Amino acid sequence: MRTVDLLIEPRWVIPVVPKGTVLTDHAVVVDAGRIVDVLPAEEARSKYEARKHDVLEQSVVMPGFVNLHTHAAMNLVRGLGADLPLMDWLTTKIWPAEGKLMSDEFVEEGSFLAGLELTASGVTTANDSYFFPEAAARGLNRAGLRAAVSAIVIGFPSAWAKNDAEYLEKGEALLKRYAGSDTVKITVGPHAPYTVSDEAFKRCAELSNAYDAPIHIHVNETAGEVADSIRLHGVRPIERLRRLGLLNERLIAVHSVHADAGDIAAMAEAGASMCHCPCSNLKLASGFAPVAAFMKAGVNVGIGTDGAASNDKLDMLGETRLAAMLAKAVAGDTTTATVADMLYAATMGGAKALGWEKLIGSVEIGKAADLIAVDLSGVGTLPIQDPAAQLLYAADRENIVRTWANGELIASRDKTMGKTAWHKAEIRPEEIQALAEKWQNRI
Amino acid sequence: MRTVDLLIEPRWVIPVVPKGTVLTDHAVVVDAGRIVDVLPAEEARSKYEARKHDVLEQSVVMPGFVNLHTHAAMNLVRGLGADLPLMDWLTTKIWPAEGKLMSDEFVEEGSFLAGLELTASGVTTANDSYFFPEAAARGLNRAGLRAAVSAIVIGFPSAWAKNDAEYLEKGEALLKRYAGSDTVKITVGPHAPYTVSDEAFKRCAELSNAYDAPIHIHVNETAGEVADSIRLHGVRPIERLRRLGLLNERLIAVHSVHADAGDIAAMAEAGASMCHCPCSNLKLASGFAPVAAFMKAGVNVGIGTDGAASNDKLDMLGETRLAAMLAKAVAGDTTTATVADMLYAATMGGAKALGWEKLIGSVEIGKAADLIAVDLSGVGTLPIQDPAAQLLYAADRENIVRTWANGELIASRDKTMGKTAWHKAEIRPEEIQALAEKWQNRI
Repeated sequence: MRTVDLLIEPRWVIPVVPKGTVLTDHAVVVDAGRIVDVLPAEEARSKYEARKHDVLEQSVVMPGFVNLHTHAAMNLVRGLGADLPLMDWLTTKIWPAEGKLMSDEFVEEGSFLAGLELTASGVTTANDSYFFPEAAARGLNRAGLRAAVSAIVIGFPSAWAKNDAEYLEKGEALLKRYAGSDTVKITVGPHAPYTVSDEAFKRCAELSNAYDAPIHIHVNETAGEVADSIRLHGVRPIERLRRLGLLNERLIAVHSVHADAGDIAAMAEAGASMCHCPCSNLKLASGFAPVAAFMKAGVNVGIGTDGAASNDKLDMLGETRLAAMLAKAVAGDTTTATVADMLYAATMGGAKALGWEKLIGSVEIGKAADLIAVDLSGVGTLPIQDPAAQLLYAADRENIVRTWANGELIASRDKTMGKTAWHKAEIRPEEIQALAEKWQNRI
Repeated sequence: MRTVDLLIEPRWVIPVVPKGTVLTDHAVVVDAGRIVDVLPAEEARSKYEARKHDVLEQSVVMPGFVNLHTHAAMNLVRGLGADLPLMDWLTTKIWPAEGKLMSDEFVEEGSFLAGLELTASGVTTANDSYFFPEAAARGLNRAGLRAAVSAIVIGFPSAWAKNDAEYLEKGEALLKRYAGSDTVKITVGPHAPYTVSDEAFKRCAELSNAYDAPIHIHVNETAGEVADSIRLHGVRPIERLRRLGLLNERLIAVHSVHADAGDIAAMAEAGASMCHCPCSNLKLASGFAPVAAFMKAGVNVGIGTDGAASNDKLDMLGETRLAAMLAKAVAGDTTTATVADMLYAATMGGAKALGWEKLIGSVEIGKAADLIAVDLSGVGTLPIQDPAAQLLYAADRENIVRTWANGELIASRDKTMGKTAWHKAEIRPEEIQALAEKWQNRI
C-alpha cells in the first residue's frame, strides 16, 4: 500500500485525453499536488492508502476549466451600460469608470473577487488581459487560480504605463521575473490591431520569441476592425500579424469572429490558437465566430468568458455550452462541435494555447491535480443517460461541487439536491432520484 | 391596520408593468393568493399586519416566468442522442423511447419531475405540448405550477389517440372540462404544418373559436419545413394557416425561426404571438429567429425552453438571457432586445399569448401572486450597478431563492452566498460584500 494525499472516487471520470472517453467507477489518485494514478476504484482502494478520501457518488470528475480570455478586474464594473451601442458603452461608461479607478489596488481586489467567482465555477486557470498584470496575478493566485497575465501593450497612456516604450519595458521585466513559474505565466499582450503600431507589434514578436511567451491579442472581433485594417494597412489583421512576425504557434487570436477562410487556413498552417468568447460576441453584437470551420481546419480552439462587463458572468461551463450550440447553428450541422470537442476546447484547448499542455488540461498521470467534480444528482440533470452530454448541456456551474488546484481543495459546495426545498410537492431527494431512475431503467 | 397573509420586502421590485420600472425598498402585499398592494416598505409596515413576513435584503422580486413552450415529460429522455443529425436523433433515439414508454404514467411522472425543475427555476406557468395532456397538467399542478396543456392533433397514431377524429374528440372533451379554470388551460395543439392536414387544421380553428382557446403550434422551425409547405401547398406555412383560419390573436407560433418579412407583417396585423426557443433552435441547428424584427413589428414575443430533450435544461432565466444576447447579434444592434423587453417577454409576453394577461405576468394589484425572488448578493452578481441588467445577465437560476404561486411558497433555496465555501482564499461572505461595495461606491 502506497500512502497518498487524496483519493477521489466519483461515479465517472472524463479525462479529456483520450478525447471522448468516459471512465465509470474509477478513482483519481493525487499526491504532492500531482495526479499519480487513474484506475478502477476497487483496485485503487487495495493499492493506495489515502490521507483524504472524497467519494462523490453521482459526480463527474474532469480537468478544471482553462478560461482562455478574461479581464478579471472588470467584475467590478459588471452591469454598467447594458444595451448601449458599443462606442457609447465604452466612452460613457467603461472607460470613465476605469479612468477614475485604475490602480494596483483596483486590479488586485477586482481580480480576487473574480477569482472567487471563477473557482466556484470550476475554473483553475485564467488567462487575463488588463493593466497592472502583477496585481491581477496576485488577486487570482490568492483565490487559488493559476494565472496567465498579459504584459499589455496599447497605444495610449494609462495608470500602468505612459507609452509603448514603458509598456514594453515593464512587460519585459515581468517576462524575466516570472520565467519558469507554474503559477504565473506572463503573456505578451498587444491589445488589438487597431490600438497597436507596427513598431510595437515587431517588438512584441521579439519578446514572444525571446521568452517563448504566448501572444494574447483581440483580433478579428468586429467587421469595422477588418475594414479599418484593409484601409490603413492594405491587408486583413491576420496577414498584418503574419508580416510583423506574430503569426505562429504562440498566437492566441481572441474572438476571431470575422476570420475568413484565408485567415483560418493561415492560422492552421502556423499552428496558432483561436479563443472563442461567444457571450461577449453576441452581447456586443460583434457576430458569430466560425468555430466549426476553425475546428475542421485543425486550429486549436479554446474558450473564454471575456470580462464580466460584456458577459456578465464568468461561467465557463455555460460559455462552453453556448459555444457548442452556437457552432451547430452557425454551421447548420448538429454533428459539429460535439460534446467531446467542446470539453476538450474548454480544458486542453486553453492549456495548449498557453503552452501549459504538459502541466494542466487533462486527467493524466503526472499532470497537476487541477480538477473539478460536477454533481449530476439534481432534478435538473436526472435521469442520467449520457454523463458527458448532460454535464455540458444540463448541468449549471452551481452543480460544480469541488474545485481542486495542485491537489488542494480551493472551492466546494453542497450537492445540488440539498439546495432546493419544494414546499407544495412534498418530495424528498431520494424520491426524486427513485422516480428518475425508474424511467431511466426502462429506456 | 389590515391583516394580510404575506408581506414581501425585497430590495427591489421589477413589476414588468410598467415596462422598465425598478422600485427600490418597496413591499409586495399578498392576501388570499392575490397581490393586494405594492408600496414603499415603510408605509406597508404601518398599513398592513402580515401573518408571514419575508425580508429579502439583496433580492429582486418579479413575476414568475411563463415558459411558453415545453414538453415537460421529455425531462425523462434528457441527454439521449446528443450531436446526432435531427432525423437520426428523432428516429433512432427519441421516437423509439417515446414509443416504448408513452402512457399516462410516463407523462404525469415526467411532467412532475420537470415541474420540480421549473419551480426551482422560477417558472410559475408552463405551456406544454405532449400526449396525455391531463397527465401533464396533473404532474405540473402537483409541483405547484399553473399548466396550459395542448389538446394535441397530429397526423399519426399514438398511445393517446389513433387518428385525427380521436385527437379532436378527446381535445374537445378537455376544452369543455377545463373551461374557466385558473390552474389548467387547454390549448388547441395542431402539432406542426408538416404533420397536420388541412381538414384537421380547419377543425382546430373551429375549436379555438368556439372555446376561445389559444392555438399552440410549431411553425417556421426549419428551412425544410418552409420549402415543403411551398412545394405541397403552394404557400409558406403562415399563409397556409391564415387561409385555414388559424392566423389570429390566439395563435402562438412556436420557433418562427424562418419567418420572413411577410410572415412577420401578417402575424403583426393578426395580433398573433411568437414563442422564441433559442437553445433548441441552436442545438438542433434550426437557425436564428429574427426576434428584433418581430419586436419592431409589434408582435407579442414570449420565451420557451422547449423540452429537455433538445436543450437540455428548463432554465427560463438562462433562456431569456440567451434570447437577449442572440437578438442583438442577429440584428447587429446592441440597443435591441433590451433588458426591459426581455423580462417582459419572459413574463407578460407569455401571459398574453395564453390569454392569461389579466391573471398573471406582472406585479400588479389584483393579479395572482405568482412571484419569484432573485438574490443578487453572491460573488457572481456583485457589485450591483443595475439590478435589472444583472438579474438578466449575471444571475443564474440558482439565485432564485423563492417561487410563489397564488401566494403560496412552492420552492425555496438558501442565498447564493451560503452555498460556496472557499478554502484557500479564506474569506467570509460579509467580506466579499464589503469589498464589492467599496468599489461600487467609487464608481
